[in-house]
Amino acid sequence: MRLRHKPWAKQFIEEHPEYVMTSSSKTKTSWKELFGNDNPIYVEVGTGKGKFLDNMSQEYPNINFIGIEKSESVLVMGLQRLLKDHKSNVRFINGDVLDLLDFFQPGEVDRLFINFTDPWPKKRHEKRRLTYKSFLSLYEQIMSDNAEIHMKTDNQGLFEYSLESMSRYGMTLKNISLDLHNSEKEDNIMTEYEEKFSQKGQRIFRLESYFSSHYPS
Amino acid sequence: MRLRHKPWAKQFIEEHPEYVMTSSSKTKTSWKELFGNDNPIYVEVGTGKGKFLDNMSQEYPNINFIGIEKSESVLVMGLQRLLKDHKSNVRFINGDVLDLLDFFQPGEVDRLFINFTDPWPKKRHEKRRLTYKSFLSLYEQIMSDNAEIHMKTDNQGLFEYSLESMSRYGMTLKNISLDLHNSEKEDNIMTEYEEKFSQKGQRIFRLESYFSSHYPS
Ligand SMILES: C[S@@+](CC[C@H](N)C(=O)[O-])C[C@H]1O[C@@H](n2cnc3c(N)ncnc32)[C@H](O)[C@@H]1O
Ligand SMILES: C[S@@+](CC[C@H](N)C(=O)[O-])C[C@H]1O[C@@H](n2cnc3c(N)ncnc32)[C@H](O)[C@@H]1O
Repeated sequence: MRLRHKPWAKQFIEEHPEYVMTSSSKTKTSWKELFGNDNPIYVEVGTGKGKFLDNMSQEYPNINFIGIEKSESVLVMGLQRLLKDHKSNVRFINGDVLDLLDFFQPGEVDRLFINFTDPWPKKRHEKRRLTYKSFLSLYEQIMSDNAEIHMKTDNQGLFEYSLESMSRYGMTLKNISLDLHNSEKEDNIMTEYEEKFSQKGQRIFRLESYFSSHYPS
Repeated sequence: MRLRHKPWAKQFIEEHPEYVMTSSSKTKTSWKELFGNDNPIYVEVGTGKGKFLDNMSQEYPNINFIGIEKSESVLVMGLQRLLKDHKSNVRFINGDVLDLLDFFQPGEVDRLFINFTDPWPKKRHEKRRLTYKSFLSLYEQIMSDNAEIHMKTDNQGLFEYSLESMSRYGMTLKNISLDLHNSEKEDNIMTEYEEKFSQKGQRIFRLESYFSSHYPS
Protein backbone atom coordinates (compact mmCIF):
# COMPACT_ATOMS: atom_id res chain seq x y z
CA MET A 1 0.00 0.00 0.00
CA ARG A 2 1.59 3.25 -1.13
CA LEU A 3 0.92 5.79 1.54
CA ARG A 4 2.78 8.79 2.85
CA HIS A 5 5.07 7.77 5.68
CA LYS A 6 3.60 8.92 9.00
CA PRO A 7 6.44 9.47 11.44
CA TRP A 8 4.03 9.73 14.38
CA ALA A 9 2.32 6.40 13.61
CA LYS A 10 4.72 4.16 15.50
CA GLN A 11 4.35 6.03 18.75
CA PHE A 12 0.60 6.38 18.35
CA ILE A 13 0.34 2.60 17.91
CA GLU A 14 2.48 1.96 20.97
CA GLU A 15 0.16 4.13 23.02
CA HIS A 16 -2.71 1.74 22.27
CA PRO A 17 -1.65 -1.73 23.39
CA GLU A 18 -5.31 -2.48 24.20
CA TYR A 19 -5.94 -2.59 20.43
CA VAL A 20 -2.59 -3.28 18.80
CA MET A 21 -0.12 -5.93 19.82
CA THR A 22 3.50 -5.30 18.83
CA SER A 23 6.70 -7.21 19.36
CA SER A 24 7.29 -5.16 22.52
CA SER A 25 3.75 -5.39 23.92
CA LYS A 26 3.16 -9.05 23.20
CA THR A 27 2.30 -11.30 26.12
CA LYS A 28 1.93 -15.00 26.71
CA THR A 29 -1.74 -14.46 27.43
CA SER A 30 -3.93 -16.37 24.97
CA TRP A 31 -6.14 -14.47 22.56
CA LYS A 32 -9.24 -16.04 24.09
CA GLU A 33 -8.28 -14.47 27.39
CA LEU A 34 -7.53 -11.12 25.76
CA PHE A 35 -10.93 -11.12 24.04
CA GLY A 36 -12.55 -12.43 27.20
CA ASN A 37 -14.59 -15.11 25.45
CA ASP A 38 -14.39 -18.43 23.59
CA ASN A 39 -15.49 -17.18 20.19
CA PRO A 40 -13.68 -18.36 17.06
CA ILE A 41 -10.63 -16.36 16.00
CA TYR A 42 -10.25 -15.22 12.39
CA VAL A 43 -7.01 -13.63 11.23
CA GLU A 44 -6.26 -11.48 8.18
CA VAL A 45 -2.62 -11.34 7.10
CA GLY A 46 -1.59 -8.07 5.44
CA THR A 47 -4.76 -6.37 6.60
CA GLY A 48 -3.92 -2.89 5.28
CA LYS A 49 -6.26 -0.22 6.64
CA GLY A 50 -8.49 -2.90 8.10
CA LYS A 51 -11.66 -2.16 6.18
CA PHE A 52 -12.44 -5.83 5.54
CA LEU A 53 -12.13 -6.65 9.25
CA ASP A 54 -14.22 -3.63 10.12
CA ASN A 55 -17.11 -4.88 7.97
CA MET A 56 -16.63 -8.52 8.93
CA SER A 57 -16.63 -7.73 12.65
CA GLN A 58 -19.92 -5.89 12.23
CA GLU A 59 -21.49 -8.73 10.24
CA TYR A 60 -20.20 -11.42 12.61
CA PRO A 61 -20.24 -10.05 16.15
CA ASN A 62 -19.64 -13.52 17.63
CA ILE A 63 -16.30 -13.94 15.94
CA ASN A 64 -13.06 -12.30 17.01
CA PHE A 65 -10.93 -10.73 14.29
CA ILE A 66 -7.22 -9.98 14.28
CA GLY A 67 -5.47 -8.12 11.47
CA ILE A 68 -1.71 -8.32 10.97
CA GLU A 69 0.00 -5.45 9.21
CA LYS A 70 3.66 -4.54 9.15
CA SER A 71 3.34 -0.95 7.95
CA GLU A 72 2.62 1.46 10.80
CA SER A 73 1.49 4.23 8.45
CA VAL A 74 -1.21 1.95 7.07
CA LEU A 75 -2.23 0.20 10.26
CA VAL A 76 -2.69 3.45 12.13
CA MET A 77 -5.73 4.21 9.98
CA GLY A 78 -7.39 1.00 11.11
CA LEU A 79 -6.49 1.86 14.68
CA GLN A 80 -8.05 5.32 14.40
CA ARG A 81 -11.29 3.80 13.12
CA LEU A 82 -11.26 1.32 15.99
CA LEU A 83 -10.76 4.11 18.54
CA LYS A 84 -13.92 5.74 17.24
CA ASP A 85 -16.02 2.57 17.02
CA HIS A 86 -14.75 0.79 20.14
CA LYS A 87 -15.33 -2.66 18.69
CA SER A 88 -14.68 -5.38 21.21
CA ASN A 89 -14.10 -8.11 18.60
CA VAL A 90 -11.27 -6.54 16.60
CA ARG A 91 -7.55 -6.32 17.38
CA PHE A 92 -4.44 -5.63 15.31
CA ILE A 93 -0.91 -6.91 15.33
CA ASN A 94 1.74 -4.53 14.10
CA GLY A 95 4.28 -7.01 12.82
CA ASP A 96 5.47 -9.21 10.02
CA VAL A 97 3.61 -12.36 9.02
CA LEU A 98 7.02 -14.06 9.18
CA ASP A 99 6.81 -13.68 12.98
CA LEU A 100 3.36 -15.24 13.30
CA LEU A 101 4.57 -17.82 15.81
CA ASP A 102 5.53 -15.04 18.23
CA PHE A 103 1.93 -13.89 18.34
CA PHE A 104 -0.12 -17.08 18.25
CA GLN A 105 -0.14 -20.39 20.05
CA PRO A 106 -0.65 -23.68 18.17
CA GLY A 107 -4.23 -24.21 17.06
CA GLU A 108 -5.39 -20.75 18.12
CA VAL A 109 -6.64 -19.57 14.71
CA ASP A 110 -9.92 -20.79 13.21
CA ARG A 111 -9.75 -19.08 9.84
CA LEU A 112 -7.09 -17.16 7.98
CA PHE A 113 -7.74 -14.57 5.25
CA ILE A 114 -5.21 -13.62 2.60
CA ASN A 115 -6.66 -10.69 0.70
CA PHE A 116 -4.97 -8.98 -2.23
CA THR A 117 -1.54 -9.74 -0.96
CA ASP A 118 1.52 -8.47 -2.83
CA PRO A 119 2.02 -10.69 -5.92
CA TRP A 120 5.84 -10.61 -6.07
CA PRO A 121 5.71 -11.68 -9.72
CA LYS A 122 9.44 -12.27 -10.17
CA LYS A 123 10.45 -15.88 -9.70
CA ARG A 124 13.36 -14.84 -7.47
CA HIS A 125 10.89 -13.25 -5.05
CA GLU A 126 8.74 -16.36 -4.77
CA LYS A 127 9.67 -16.81 -1.09
CA ARG A 128 8.03 -13.51 -0.23
CA ARG A 129 4.60 -14.52 -1.51
CA LEU A 130 2.30 -15.14 1.44
CA THR A 131 1.29 -18.48 -0.11
CA TYR A 132 4.87 -19.78 -0.42
CA LYS A 133 5.27 -23.11 1.36
CA SER A 134 7.13 -21.66 4.34
CA PHE A 135 4.17 -19.36 5.04
CA LEU A 136 1.73 -22.26 4.62
CA SER A 137 3.76 -24.11 7.22
CA LEU A 138 3.47 -21.19 9.65
CA TYR A 139 -0.30 -21.04 9.10
CA GLU A 140 -0.61 -24.78 9.63
CA GLN A 141 1.07 -24.52 13.02
CA ILE A 142 -1.28 -21.89 14.43
CA MET A 143 -4.51 -23.11 12.83
CA SER A 144 -7.04 -25.34 14.56
CA ASP A 145 -8.39 -28.59 13.15
CA ASN A 146 -10.86 -27.91 10.32
CA ALA A 147 -9.58 -24.36 9.96
CA GLU A 148 -9.74 -22.86 6.49
CA ILE A 149 -7.71 -20.36 4.53
CA HIS A 150 -9.79 -17.97 2.40
CA MET A 151 -7.93 -16.09 -0.27
CA LYS A 152 -8.95 -13.34 -2.72
CA THR A 153 -6.85 -11.57 -5.29
CA ASP A 154 -7.09 -9.76 -8.60
CA ASN A 155 -3.67 -11.06 -9.60
CA GLN A 156 -3.93 -14.01 -11.97
CA GLY A 157 -0.28 -15.06 -11.63
CA LEU A 158 -0.44 -15.06 -7.83
CA PHE A 159 -3.69 -17.00 -7.92
CA GLU A 160 -2.31 -19.67 -10.27
CA TYR A 161 0.76 -19.89 -8.06
CA SER A 162 -1.27 -20.16 -4.87
CA LEU A 163 -3.48 -22.96 -6.22
CA GLU A 164 -0.36 -24.90 -7.12
CA SER A 165 1.56 -24.10 -3.95
CA MET A 166 -1.32 -25.12 -1.67
CA SER A 167 -1.99 -28.26 -3.70
CA ARG A 168 1.69 -29.23 -3.67
CA TYR A 169 1.77 -28.64 0.11
CA GLY A 170 -1.00 -31.23 0.45
CA MET A 171 -3.85 -28.81 1.10
CA THR A 172 -7.29 -29.44 -0.36
CA LEU A 173 -8.98 -26.70 -2.39
CA LYS A 174 -12.68 -25.86 -2.45
CA ASN A 175 -15.19 -23.16 -3.38
CA ILE A 176 -12.96 -21.79 -6.11
CA SER A 177 -14.29 -18.81 -8.03
CA LEU A 178 -12.47 -17.53 -11.08
CA ASP A 179 -14.70 -14.48 -11.41
CA LEU A 180 -16.14 -13.75 -8.01
CA HIS A 181 -18.17 -10.68 -8.87
CA ASN A 182 -19.92 -12.43 -11.74
CA SER A 183 -20.74 -15.59 -9.85
CA GLU A 184 -23.51 -16.54 -7.49
CA LYS A 185 -21.33 -16.74 -4.37
CA GLU A 186 -23.32 -15.18 -1.56
CA ASP A 187 -22.48 -12.52 1.02
CA ASN A 188 -19.07 -11.41 -0.20
CA ILE A 189 -17.53 -8.69 1.96
CA MET A 190 -15.21 -6.49 -0.05
CA THR A 191 -11.76 -5.38 0.97
CA GLU A 192 -10.29 -2.00 0.17
CA TYR A 193 -8.24 -3.28 -2.74
CA GLU A 194 -11.15 -5.35 -3.98
CA GLU A 195 -13.30 -2.25 -4.34
CA LYS A 196 -10.54 -0.47 -6.18
CA PHE A 197 -9.76 -3.30 -8.59
CA SER A 198 -13.31 -4.38 -9.26
CA GLN A 199 -14.27 -0.80 -10.10
CA LYS A 200 -11.60 -0.98 -12.78
CA GLY A 201 -13.33 -4.06 -14.15
CA GLN A 202 -10.61 -6.45 -12.94
CA ARG A 203 -11.62 -10.06 -12.44
CA ILE A 204 -11.46 -11.19 -8.80
CA PHE A 205 -10.27 -14.72 -7.97
CA ARG A 206 -11.16 -16.56 -4.78
CA LEU A 207 -10.38 -19.90 -3.13
CA GLU A 208 -10.82 -21.75 0.12
CA SER A 209 -8.43 -24.42 1.32
CA TYR A 210 -7.63 -26.58 4.30
CA PHE A 211 -4.82 -28.77 5.52
CA SER A 212 -6.11 -32.17 4.53
CA SER A 213 -4.69 -34.08 7.46
CA HIS A 214 -6.71 -31.77 9.72
CA TYR A 215 -10.03 -32.25 8.07
CA PRO A 216 -12.59 -34.96 8.85
CA SER A 217 -13.51 -36.78 5.67
CA MET B 1 -20.42 -32.13 -30.96
CA ARG B 2 -23.51 -31.37 -33.06
CA LEU B 3 -23.10 -33.16 -36.35
CA ARG B 4 -25.48 -34.72 -38.78
CA HIS B 5 -26.05 -38.37 -37.90
CA LYS B 6 -24.19 -40.55 -40.40
CA PRO B 7 -25.98 -43.89 -40.65
CA TRP B 8 -23.07 -45.47 -42.52
CA ALA B 9 -20.48 -44.49 -39.89
CA LYS B 10 -20.92 -47.49 -37.62
CA GLN B 11 -20.33 -50.00 -40.37
CA PHE B 12 -17.44 -48.01 -41.80
CA ILE B 13 -15.77 -48.01 -38.38
CA GLU B 14 -16.28 -51.74 -37.98
CA GLU B 15 -14.56 -52.30 -41.31
CA HIS B 16 -11.39 -50.74 -39.91
CA PRO B 17 -10.43 -52.67 -36.77
CA GLU B 18 -6.77 -51.92 -37.55
CA TYR B 19 -7.45 -48.29 -36.57
CA VAL B 20 -10.52 -48.33 -34.35
CA MET B 21 -11.15 -50.64 -31.44
CA THR B 22 -14.80 -51.21 -30.53
CA SER B 23 -16.50 -53.29 -27.88
CA SER B 24 -16.79 -56.09 -30.43
CA SER B 25 -13.26 -55.89 -31.83
CA LYS B 26 -11.45 -55.48 -28.54
CA THR B 27 -8.79 -58.02 -27.66
CA LYS B 28 -6.71 -58.87 -24.63
CA THR B 29 -3.59 -57.88 -26.55
CA SER B 30 -1.79 -55.02 -24.84
CA TRP B 31 -1.55 -51.66 -26.59
CA LYS B 32 2.24 -51.93 -26.66
CA GLU B 33 1.88 -55.09 -28.70
CA LEU B 34 -0.71 -53.51 -30.97
CA PHE B 35 1.57 -50.53 -31.62
CA GLY B 36 4.55 -52.84 -31.90
CA ASN B 37 6.81 -50.77 -29.66
CA ASP B 38 7.43 -49.63 -26.08
CA ASN B 39 6.68 -45.95 -26.60
CA PRO B 40 4.60 -44.07 -24.01
CA ILE B 41 0.83 -44.15 -24.49
CA TYR B 42 -1.18 -40.93 -24.32
CA VAL B 43 -4.97 -41.04 -24.34
CA GLU B 44 -7.53 -38.35 -25.13
CA VAL B 45 -11.01 -38.89 -23.72
CA GLY B 46 -13.82 -37.40 -25.84
CA THR B 47 -11.50 -36.88 -28.77
CA GLY B 48 -14.10 -35.58 -31.22
CA LYS B 49 -12.80 -35.46 -34.78
CA GLY B 50 -9.29 -36.19 -33.56
CA LYS B 51 -7.60 -33.02 -34.73
CA PHE B 52 -5.60 -32.63 -31.50
CA LEU B 53 -4.27 -36.18 -31.76
CA ASP B 54 -3.49 -35.67 -35.41
CA ASN B 55 -1.26 -32.70 -34.63
CA MET B 56 0.19 -34.24 -31.49
CA SER B 57 1.12 -37.46 -33.28
CA GLN B 58 2.96 -35.44 -35.90
CA GLU B 59 4.82 -33.37 -33.30
CA TYR B 60 5.66 -36.40 -31.14
CA PRO B 61 6.31 -39.39 -33.41
CA ASN B 62 7.77 -41.41 -30.53
CA ILE B 63 4.57 -41.38 -28.54
CA ASN B 64 1.51 -43.47 -29.25
CA PHE B 65 -1.86 -41.74 -29.14
CA ILE B 66 -5.31 -43.21 -28.58
CA GLY B 67 -8.51 -41.19 -28.84
CA ILE B 68 -11.76 -42.36 -27.26
CA GLU B 69 -15.00 -41.13 -28.76
CA LYS B 70 -18.49 -42.47 -28.34
CA SER B 71 -20.14 -40.82 -31.32
CA GLU B 72 -19.61 -42.74 -34.56
CA SER B 73 -20.60 -39.79 -36.73
CA VAL B 74 -17.82 -37.70 -35.18
CA LEU B 75 -15.17 -40.37 -34.86
CA VAL B 76 -15.52 -41.41 -38.50
CA MET B 77 -14.00 -38.11 -39.57
CA GLY B 78 -10.87 -38.84 -37.57
CA LEU B 79 -10.79 -42.31 -39.09
CA GLN B 80 -11.05 -40.95 -42.63
CA ARG B 81 -8.11 -38.65 -41.98
CA LEU B 82 -6.12 -41.54 -40.58
CA LEU B 83 -6.87 -43.67 -43.65
CA LYS B 84 -5.34 -40.95 -45.77
CA ASP B 85 -2.30 -40.27 -43.57
CA HIS B 86 -1.58 -43.85 -42.47
CA LYS B 87 -0.10 -42.77 -39.14
CA SER B 88 1.35 -45.65 -37.20
CA ASN B 89 1.14 -43.94 -33.82
CA VAL B 90 -2.58 -43.12 -33.70
CA ARG B 91 -5.54 -45.35 -32.88
CA PHE B 92 -9.13 -44.73 -31.84
CA ILE B 93 -11.56 -46.42 -29.53
CA ASN B 94 -15.23 -46.12 -30.42
CA GLY B 95 -16.73 -46.37 -27.00
CA ASP B 96 -17.76 -44.66 -23.79
CA VAL B 97 -15.19 -43.38 -21.29
CA LEU B 98 -17.29 -45.18 -18.69
CA ASP B 99 -16.00 -48.45 -20.19
CA LEU B 100 -12.32 -47.49 -20.04
CA LEU B 101 -11.41 -50.59 -18.03
CA ASP B 102 -12.61 -52.79 -20.91
CA PHE B 103 -10.00 -51.23 -23.18
CA PHE B 104 -6.95 -50.69 -20.96
CA GLN B 105 -4.94 -52.73 -18.53
CA PRO B 106 -3.77 -51.29 -15.20
CA GLY B 107 -0.89 -48.84 -15.60
CA GLU B 108 -1.02 -48.84 -19.39
CA VAL B 109 -1.59 -45.11 -19.89
CA ASP B 110 1.18 -42.52 -19.46
CA ARG B 111 -0.82 -39.35 -19.97
CA LEU B 112 -4.50 -38.55 -20.26
CA PHE B 113 -5.96 -35.50 -21.99
CA ILE B 114 -9.39 -34.06 -21.24
CA ASN B 115 -10.03 -31.36 -23.81
CA PHE B 116 -13.17 -29.22 -23.94
CA THR B 117 -15.31 -31.91 -22.47
CA ASP B 118 -19.03 -31.36 -22.06
CA PRO B 119 -19.55 -29.10 -19.00
CA TRP B 120 -22.86 -30.55 -17.76
CA PRO B 121 -23.52 -27.37 -15.78
CA LYS B 122 -26.56 -28.62 -13.89
CA LYS B 123 -25.72 -29.96 -10.44
CA ARG B 124 -27.88 -33.03 -11.03
CA HIS B 125 -25.65 -33.95 -13.98
CA GLU B 126 -22.41 -33.70 -11.97
CA LYS B 127 -21.79 -37.45 -12.34
CA ARG B 128 -21.53 -37.11 -16.11
CA ARG B 129 -18.63 -34.64 -15.98
CA LEU B 130 -15.44 -36.39 -17.04
CA THR B 131 -13.70 -35.01 -13.93
CA TYR B 132 -16.27 -36.42 -11.49
CA LYS B 133 -14.61 -38.62 -8.88
CA SER B 134 -15.78 -41.88 -10.42
CA PHE B 135 -14.03 -40.96 -13.68
CA LEU B 136 -10.89 -39.95 -11.77
CA SER B 137 -10.95 -43.37 -10.17
CA LEU B 138 -11.14 -45.04 -13.62
CA TYR B 139 -8.21 -42.95 -14.84
CA GLU B 140 -6.18 -43.77 -11.74
CA GLN B 141 -6.59 -47.48 -12.40
CA ILE B 142 -5.23 -47.41 -15.94
CA MET B 143 -2.52 -44.78 -15.45
CA SER B 144 1.13 -45.54 -14.80
CA ASP B 145 3.16 -44.14 -11.93
CA ASN B 146 4.01 -40.47 -12.53
CA ALA B 147 1.32 -40.21 -15.21
CA GLU B 148 -0.36 -36.85 -15.59
CA ILE B 149 -3.77 -35.61 -16.60
CA HIS B 150 -3.75 -32.52 -18.82
CA MET B 151 -7.00 -30.66 -19.12
CA LYS B 152 -8.13 -27.68 -21.20
CA THR B 153 -11.51 -26.02 -21.36
CA ASP B 154 -13.18 -22.72 -22.09
CA ASN B 155 -15.84 -23.43 -19.49
CA GLN B 156 -15.17 -21.58 -16.26
CA GLY B 157 -17.67 -23.57 -14.19
CA LEU B 158 -16.28 -26.89 -15.35
CA PHE B 159 -12.75 -25.71 -14.65
CA GLU B 160 -13.57 -24.54 -11.12
CA TYR B 161 -15.33 -27.85 -10.53
CA SER B 162 -12.42 -29.88 -11.90
CA LEU B 163 -9.83 -28.12 -9.74
CA GLU B 164 -11.95 -28.88 -6.69
CA SER B 165 -12.84 -32.43 -7.69
CA MET B 166 -9.23 -33.39 -8.39
CA SER B 167 -8.01 -31.71 -5.21
CA ARG B 168 -10.67 -33.42 -3.11
CA TYR B 169 -9.73 -36.74 -4.71
CA GLY B 170 -6.19 -36.22 -3.43
CA MET B 171 -4.60 -35.28 -6.72
CA THR B 172 -1.92 -32.60 -6.90
CA LEU B 173 -2.33 -29.70 -9.33
CA LYS B 174 0.40 -27.99 -11.30
CA ASN B 175 1.04 -25.75 -14.30
CA ILE B 176 -2.32 -24.05 -14.00
CA SER B 177 -3.10 -21.38 -16.55
CA LEU B 178 -6.20 -19.23 -16.20
CA ASP B 179 -5.71 -17.59 -19.58
CA LEU B 180 -3.67 -19.94 -21.72
CA HIS B 181 -3.57 -17.90 -24.91
CA ASN B 182 -2.31 -14.83 -23.08
CA SER B 183 0.37 -16.60 -21.07
CA GLU B 184 3.88 -17.69 -21.84
CA LYS B 185 3.17 -21.41 -21.84
CA GLU B 186 5.13 -22.88 -24.73
CA ASP B 187 4.17 -25.17 -27.59
CA ASN B 188 0.43 -25.40 -27.07
CA ILE B 189 -1.29 -27.62 -29.61
CA MET B 190 -4.85 -26.52 -30.23
CA THR B 191 -7.89 -28.74 -30.37
CA GLU B 192 -10.83 -28.18 -32.68
CA TYR B 193 -12.98 -26.62 -29.99
CA GLU B 194 -10.07 -24.56 -28.75
CA GLU B 195 -9.71 -22.90 -32.15
CA LYS B 196 -13.40 -22.18 -32.28
CA PHE B 197 -13.66 -20.73 -28.78
CA SER B 198 -10.43 -18.77 -28.80
CA GLN B 199 -11.43 -17.15 -32.09
CA LYS B 200 -14.50 -15.90 -30.27
CA GLY B 201 -12.20 -14.36 -27.67
CA GLN B 202 -13.07 -16.90 -24.98
CA ARG B 203 -10.53 -17.41 -22.23
CA ILE B 204 -8.95 -20.87 -22.21
CA PHE B 205 -8.20 -22.59 -18.89
CA ARG B 206 -5.59 -25.32 -18.46
CA LEU B 207 -4.30 -27.57 -15.68
CA GLU B 208 -2.04 -30.54 -15.12
CA SER B 209 -2.52 -32.97 -12.26
CA TYR B 210 -1.29 -36.27 -10.93
CA PHE B 211 -2.31 -38.84 -8.37
CA SER B 212 -0.13 -37.87 -5.47
CA SER B 213 0.46 -41.33 -4.08
CA HIS B 214 1.94 -42.22 -7.47
CA TYR B 215 4.39 -39.37 -7.68
CA PRO B 216 7.93 -39.31 -6.34
CA SER B 217 8.40 -36.29 -4.08
C1 LIG C 1 -2.01 -4.82 -1.24
S1 LIG C 1 -2.32 -4.48 0.41
C2 LIG C 1 -3.94 -5.23 0.69
C3 LIG C 1 -4.61 -4.76 1.91
C4 LIG C 1 -5.94 -5.44 2.26
N1 LIG C 1 -5.76 -6.84 2.60
C5 LIG C 1 -6.95 -5.29 1.13
O1 LIG C 1 -7.32 -6.33 0.53
O2 LIG C 1 -7.42 -4.18 0.88
C6 LIG C 1 -1.19 -5.60 1.21
C7 LIG C 1 -0.84 -5.22 2.62
O3 LIG C 1 -0.12 -6.29 3.21
C8 LIG C 1 0.96 -5.79 3.97
N2 LIG C 1 1.99 -6.83 4.03
C9 LIG C 1 2.65 -7.37 2.98
N3 LIG C 1 3.51 -8.31 3.39
C10 LIG C 1 3.38 -8.37 4.75
C11 LIG C 1 4.04 -9.14 5.74
N4 LIG C 1 4.99 -10.03 5.44
N5 LIG C 1 3.66 -8.94 7.02
C12 LIG C 1 2.71 -8.04 7.35
N6 LIG C 1 2.07 -7.28 6.44
C13 LIG C 1 2.41 -7.44 5.15
C14 LIG C 1 1.40 -4.55 3.23
O4 LIG C 1 2.05 -3.64 4.10
C15 LIG C 1 0.06 -4.00 2.70
O5 LIG C 1 -0.52 -3.08 3.60
C1 LIG D 1 -17.06 -30.79 -26.97
S1 LIG D 1 -16.36 -32.11 -27.86
C2 LIG D 1 -14.62 -31.77 -27.81
C3 LIG D 1 -13.83 -32.52 -28.82
C4 LIG D 1 -12.30 -32.35 -28.75
N1 LIG D 1 -11.74 -32.91 -27.50
C5 LIG D 1 -11.89 -30.90 -28.88
O1 LIG D 1 -11.34 -30.32 -27.90
O2 LIG D 1 -12.07 -30.32 -29.94
C6 LIG D 1 -16.57 -33.44 -26.70
C7 LIG D 1 -16.58 -34.82 -27.33
O3 LIG D 1 -16.54 -35.78 -26.29
C8 LIG D 1 -17.40 -36.86 -26.62
N2 LIG D 1 -17.79 -37.49 -25.35
C9 LIG D 1 -18.48 -36.89 -24.35
N3 LIG D 1 -18.67 -37.76 -23.34
C10 LIG D 1 -18.09 -38.93 -23.71
C11 LIG D 1 -17.97 -40.20 -23.10
N4 LIG D 1 -18.49 -40.43 -21.88
N5 LIG D 1 -17.30 -41.16 -23.76
C12 LIG D 1 -16.77 -40.92 -25.00
N6 LIG D 1 -16.87 -39.74 -25.62
C13 LIG D 1 -17.53 -38.76 -25.00
C14 LIG D 1 -18.54 -36.21 -27.38
O4 LIG D 1 -19.19 -37.15 -28.24
C15 LIG D 1 -17.81 -35.12 -28.18
O5 LIG D 1 -17.41 -35.54 -29.44
